[in-house]
Amino acid sequence: MTPTTADETPSDVIARTLAAIAPPDADAAASAEARQGSLTKPPGSLGRLETLATTIAGITGSDRPRLDNRLLVVTAGDHGVEAQGVSAYPQSVTAQMVANFVSGGAAANVLADHAGARVRVVDAAVVDQTPDVDGLLRLRLAAGSDDITQGPAMTRELAERAIAAGIALFEAERAGKGVDIVGCGEMGIANSTPAAAIVAAVTGRPPRTVTGRGTGIDDERYETKVRAIERALEVNRPDSSDGIGLLASIGGFEIGVLVGVYLAAAASRAPAVVDGLISGGAALVATAIEPGVGPYLIASHLSVEPGHAATLEQLALEPMFDLGLRLGEGSGAALGITLCVAACRLLDEMATFGEAGVDDSDDIVAPEA
Amino acid sequence: MTPTTADETPSDVIARTLAAIAPPDADAAASAEARQGSLTKPPGSLGRLETLATTIAGITGSDRPRLDNRLLVVTAGDHGVEAQGVSAYPQSVTAQMVANFVSGGAAANVLADHAGARVRVVDAAVVDQTPDVDGLLRLRLAAGSDDITQGPAMTRELAERAIAAGIALFEAERAGKGVDIVGCGEMGIANSTPAAAIVAAVTGRPPRTVTGRGTGIDDERYETKVRAIERALEVNRPDSSDGIGLLASIGGFEIGVLVGVYLAAAASRAPAVVDGLISGGAALVATAIEPGVGPYLIASHLSVEPGHAATLEQLALEPMFDLGLRLGEGSGAALGITLCVAACRLLDEMATFGEAGVDDSDDIVAPEA
Repeated sequence: MTPTTADETPSDVIARTLAAIAPPDADAAASAEARQGSLTKPPGSLGRLETLATTIAGITGSDRPRLDNRLLVVTAGDHGVEAQGVSAYPQSVTAQMVANFVSGGAAANVLADHAGARVRVVDAAVVDQTPDVDGLLRLRLAAGSDDITQGPAMTRELAERAIAAGIALFEAERAGKGVDIVGCGEMGIANSTPAAAIVAAVTGRPPRTVTGRGTGIDDERYETKVRAIERALEVNRPDSSDGIGLLASIGGFEIGVLVGVYLAAAASRAPAVVDGLISGGAALVATAIEPGVGPYLIASHLSVEPGHAATLEQLALEPMFDLGLRLGEGSGAALGITLCVAACRLLDEMATFGEAGVDDSDDIVAPEA
Repeated sequence: MTPTTADETPSDVIARTLAAIAPPDADAAASAEARQGSLTKPPGSLGRLETLATTIAGITGSDRPRLDNRLLVVTAGDHGVEAQGVSAYPQSVTAQMVANFVSGGAAANVLADHAGARVRVVDAAVVDQTPDVDGLLRLRLAAGSDDITQGPAMTRELAERAIAAGIALFEAERAGKGVDIVGCGEMGIANSTPAAAIVAAVTGRPPRTVTGRGTGIDDERYETKVRAIERALEVNRPDSSDGIGLLASIGGFEIGVLVGVYLAAAASRAPAVVDGLISGGAALVATAIEPGVGPYLIASHLSVEPGHAATLEQLALEPMFDLGLRLGEGSGAALGITLCVAACRLLDEMATFGEAGVDDSDDIVAPEA
């Protein structure tokens, strides 16, 4: 894939990326599956760890994929809808948490380090000043999105710039240290509101059924949040067959950058690990833009947020685990990377029956699930 | 704790260990829980990872436990009941897999390495010869257990020797490199038969409801296995209030060594991570001997084996994940250690609101689960 150049418009970058997305490699997946059957264990006894490694083989095109270079992208942005009183935290927290990500004190940092993944932090559209330091990509595309209860979140041009920035980020990381797997996280006060709106728009479910408590809001704020989402859908009438339009109308900038990361990962044959509701909302936008992104997505956890189960169902993804997480930041995605690494190491490193001199069963039958 | 000496009888070792088991440290757990509330995340947003770290704080007595020294114990043994035709694999596989564990080619080795845990392999009672190498503790207490459909698995004296050997192993590892957390795995052709018998005896459930397909057996063998378990219970009439007698009547040697590891871990205030059905059966025996072991146990996964859910329910443990595993060997326990490490690192390494200069919410309410 050609790296992004200054001559390209955001629209060019997106079009070039979409053109590079092809189906997973069925031969590599079949070869990985055959190898699973030769390893020193009863067939299928490693359950999801086997199917996960086989899926990643198909994604990467390698029958023994190694996930040596791991990246967690954490994008941050503010949201005009915060003015409606939908969050328990003040907007100032977004910039403060960006500083926390950069200095390594957040949950995402700890879990990324545990997964052996480097963290790339992006200020997509934070209202307050963020630190001008090496570890932070300061896009600052706007001073937050506009209030989606009053009109669109952003112009279509800005939506394309956010997506193209995500693509450029992924391509730069891939050209630099390499990216064998990427996890997608985010942070932004009020961002479970646009995310739930996206889920409602794409799945057609009533807003209330996909709206949760976010960072932890009381009943009054919860009602305010549901009404804000209902109003955003009425005012903007988003068309879920137009992914970029969906992002522009009811999305957010940190969501848009993640959309670009998903598109670029699919184009580059890298597995992209989905985190919670907001990361999942970005995946819905990415697959609305190009359904071919779907096979490159891997679900990590099932979030407490009620819209997340609907999101994963829409994406036809099964979560790997349910630990009651509802933090975002890529915390679940980082743990998901840990499990993907374990799955691929088993496929690559276990001895075969022949290598280990272990007798295989003569009459194995598939056990009941 | 005094290390095991040559002067002690197995019975002395067990009695001394039981006497050292005390309740977890409620103050350390409360202090850890308070710290969770001060970290830069909405309260409770890391779900099970928060409660897990709090539990481990209580176990270890440290409000910021570090799990630097990690051990996976994999015990192996053969079973006389194999002669009844309850397994799809020949008994020769037990010794062959021990060699595979020692040379690092098994799933347990890969997942332990991924968890940063060293592996200690034990030949408790393998019929075939196992390699005389440094990495293997060759107890060889018997040439497998006796056929439990015909009488007891072993004498009470041998059951005590197996348990005391597990205690001695743990104590030696703790005195050597140290043990901050231990995972308990096993291997042995036919060993899901005695394990299911233990589950049936302790829970009072009908054998069929707790009997699974093990490594993968067909319908005919499955019926044979159910009948073997029913017969073992009829012939031995195990008393589940007598843990050592339970092990002697329907257990196995690799199960007995794990019982000792659980007892020693509890006495040493180290969390012990339970794996699947057989490891869980050993935990049932350990808690039958001393209920005070219970709070030191941590469940890793929910196994495909139907007796495992009944086991965890009996132990009042919630599994962390369900990945469709049914391998044993400590594969799930190793992944469980990985999650325990992640949970404790979050508690220890995340910045507090004060340290990071992040505004806390003024009006956080607990979200609905």
